Amino acid sequence: MGKVRRRAQGNPGHVVFIGAGPGAADLITVRGARWLARADVVLFDALTDPELRTLAPQAQWLDVGKRGFSNSSNSADQAAISALLVQQAQQHALVVRLKGGDPSVFGRLEEELQALSRHGITCEVVPGVTAALAAAACTQRPLTRRGAGRSASLCTAMTQMHTLQAGHHADTEVFYMAGRQLGLLGRKLLAAAWPADTAVNVVSRAGWPDALSSDHLLADLAAAALVHAGRPTVVVVGVGASALGTAAGHRPHQHPTRLAVESARQAIPLPRP
Amino acid sequence: MGKVRRRAQGNPGHVVFIGAGPGAADLITVRGARWLARADVVLFDALTDPELRTLAPQAQWLDVGKRGFSNSSNSADQAAISALLVQQAQQHALVVRLKGGDPSVFGRLEEELQALSRHGITCEVVPGVTAALAAAACTQRPLTRRGAGRSASLCTAMTQMHTLQAGHHADTEVFYMAGRQLGLLGRKLLAAAWPADTAVNVVSRAGWPDALSSDHLLADLAAAALVHAGRPTVVVVGVGASALGTAAGHRPHQHPTRLAVESARQAIPLPRP
Repeated sequence: MGKVRRRAQGNPGHVVFIGAGPGAADLITVRGARWLARADVVLFDALTDPELRTLAPQAQWLDVGKRGFSNSSNSADQAAISALLVQQAQQHALVVRLKGGDPSVFGRLEEELQALSRHGITCEVVPGVTAALAAAACTQRPLTRRGAGRSASLCTAMTQMHTLQAGHHADTEVFYMAGRQLGLLGRKLLAAAWPADTAVNVVSRAGWPDALSSDHLLADLAAAALVHAGRPTVVVVGVGASALGTAAGHRPHQHPTRLAVESARQAIPLPRP
Repeated sequence: MGKVRRRAQGNPGHVVFIGAGPGAADLITVRGARWLARADVVLFDALTDPELRTLAPQAQWLDVGKRGFSNSSNSADQAAISALLVQQAQQHALVVRLKGGDPSVFGRLEEELQALSRHGITCEVVPGVTAALAAAACTQRPLTRRGAGRSASLCTAMTQMHTLQAGHHADTEVFYMAGRQLGLLGRKLLAAAWPADTAVNVVSRAGWPDALSSDHLLADLAAAALVHAGRPTVVVVGVGASALGTAAGHRPHQHPTRLAVESARQAIPLPRP
């Protein structure tokens, strides 16, 4: 850990963006935890684990996930968060901006980095575990498989225009923020030439003690909606969703994936470490 | 942390796969560090930070990255690692398998999970920060950008047949293990219809204090080879490689990415937190 310049009169503080990981507080990195222990102020989103507060009891915690800074794609909300971040950095030596998952993946990091840059405020980014990695860990289904899966794409099906798009780009595709439109996502994937019996694994609250995982065939993806209703959800499609050993030797880019995975439908609670 | 069953006579132990993160020891998760503190044996690869040993001074540390368990794609080496893992789990209550980055991304996790399953050995996976996330953090260039980049693909250009392939699948593509063939990767990407002036960011030893980053246009990618020679390297191509603000509004899947990013060529040492 380097030295943080004490805020002299007129000198702004330093901002550290930290990926809190997708769930339970113990999925934050050691580096992130150490920065938190020194923070004067922490700006946090709704999704992060309240237990993270015990890592920075000395800090002032500001909830920017609440109303007025909602999780909608309202850019005015994002501008308000950026303005608050700048304001706090002008008043405190060390400001932590805590984000769920990893800041560089669907974390709207660019807007906040630009705001700090415009005001000459220094910052750094501590990476975190993004939801796709936590999902693969808790289901024990690696996103890449030797001889079968050389690429894993982290994507959102939701465009800025609030339409849903999906394609067939990588051997494994992991969709973020698709929990509310699983039926539509399934239809879009079928339309993008994924075979109806492609393995799909849906994981909600990955990384938490109450994580749920369910297996589906692509044609039955809509059935997952009830299981995972109201929970942060990632959808793993293709090689990385298949049971161990069943994808070996297949090369989905050359041959459409046809995997003999049973549609389990019921959810499997995962053990807490 | 749950209870680990003590190994009764004939009962195998429990294996925990842990992603150590891509570099410095403090990028491991708190959960991973806690498991390490309880390990009887740790099987580790060559790339992980020696400082991680201080997290498990009580454990026996077995280097499976050395000769005989090389990092080549030799499947006999992988079989030997899996066999050793099974053997250790039959002799100890808690065996940690420590992997660089995240176990589910290019970690050859499937083979080891299958070996444990065949022997009825229980296990779990603790996710880690994969190199792409650490690269984005240290260059402060988010992999996704609102309105410009909805997908980031983590891929290896090297096939199992030791030929190099590259495509144009996601808005941002991050290539792992491509450091030795940057010129060839550049030519393959041009052949896959990425424009010659596509932004490419090459980062070596992401997450370490001596991380290096260099900016290139795709046509000049070969120039990065000298800068990053002999260092673990990731190559970020497309929206996620572009400077802040320059990718907004572009939609590379509809329109080829044409970014006005200067080719910096010289390496920029990144500050240690």
